[in-house]
Amino acid sequence: MHVVIPLFPRYTTLDAIGPYEVLRFIPDAEITFAAVETDPVPADSGALAITDTTPLDEIETCDIVVVPGGPGSRAENKRLVDWLKMIHPKTRWTTSVCTGALVLGSAGLLNGIDAATHWNPKVVERLKELGARYVPDRVVVNEEHRIVTSAGVSAGIDMALDLAARLTAQMTAEAIQLAIQYDPQPPFDCGSPDKATEDVQQRALELLGSATV
Amino acid sequence: MHVVIPLFPRYTTLDAIGPYEVLRFIPDAEITFAAVETDPVPADSGALAITDTTPLDEIETCDIVVVPGGPGSRAENKRLVDWLKMIHPKTRWTTSVCTGALVLGSAGLLNGIDAATHWNPKVVERLKELGARYVPDRVVVNEEHRIVTSAGVSAGIDMALDLAARLTAQMTAEAIQLAIQYDPQPPFDCGSPDKATEDVQQRALELLGSATV
Repeated sequence: MHVVIPLFPRYTTLDAIGPYEVLRFIPDAEITFAAVETDPVPADSGALAITDTTPLDEIETCDIVVVPGGPGSRAENKRLVDWLKMIHPKTRWTTSVCTGALVLGSAGLLNGIDAATHWNPKVVERLKELGARYVPDRVVVNEEHRIVTSAGVSAGIDMALDLAARLTAQMTAEAIQLAIQYDPQPPFDCGSPDKATEDVQQRALELLGSATV
Repeated sequence: MHVVIPLFPRYTTLDAIGPYEVLRFIPDAEITFAAVETDPVPADSGALAITDTTPLDEIETCDIVVVPGGPGSRAENKRLVDWLKMIHPKTRWTTSVCTGALVLGSAGLLNGIDAATHWNPKVVERLKELGARYVPDRVVVNEEHRIVTSAGVSAGIDMALDLAARLTAQMTAEAIQLAIQYDPQPPFDCGSPDKATEDVQQRALELLGSATV
């Protein structure tokens, strides 16, 4: 089971690392971080970069693709978009986290289907322009098109556990959840816009704007 | 607010990236990934390495330390242990995720106090040998000693949100939770050993053993 996680400059690190940390425990999984441009690949914050990646254009087939989001997902990304068009017919599942859905959309993979993404209204608007029907769910599975999209940043962990159950047995996915001790207990309850005040929403958008390069 | 995340060879990536993705949104935060040995620093799985780090011995003061776990945390780690002994008297909070608690313990920082770590019985036993009182909580805050420890891998996200609220205003921490859309909805409910069958626990320990290098 070959899992490819393409990294473009200014990806959001948790978008990529959440699913990675789940999927790597699938017994026959091989995980490849692939550089869309050059290696090392700098994260959005500028605080770190990931290296030891494989050039994306060397990957001609794989089972699972996980496209992370981040400010870099809103760039043109022609190389990644063309690669997605080539690879998607061969995958078992093509998936995205956060604004990674915009890259899937740019490749025409979300045309006319339901999709999740980050709740940021500008992102939602862009997703719709790309032909998708936005739904405010955490994980959206389209079995017919073999596409899974998920909400912002941390949602990739939930998505990957769902995928792990589909790809193995539920018992294995449960064991992975326990291995990463994923028994979430956030100290507050405003992780989605319907649970947050207008003020908190505005502040979150400000933080997202100022913390990304 | 200077946050340092030391990376030793064979750290578990999500242990480091979960707290990073929260703490980087604190408005005046500066995040430094520090290499305990050499850069780039390879993750436990061998699938990636983090680069653009700062040599640990160049860091003489900071506000927050987050020590991740991973198989590398059980090595001797003399350099990191000595650094922790030097830096802890200067920090506002010295913290750990998962088996990072063993490194804090080796530095003598958990002697006689409550601490959380990964639920793996061998890890718990080692933590006790290092003088800590293990508690099966997700996040354990010791205000007197300025120490925060957390449970396995994914628990670092919850810990960092708690820290963000202590370091800023709760409203800012709530906005960070919304920015990373942390509204967890795992598809199963066995993220801690008291929620999992013996079989799932055994399988999780097997996966942890086989997936780490």
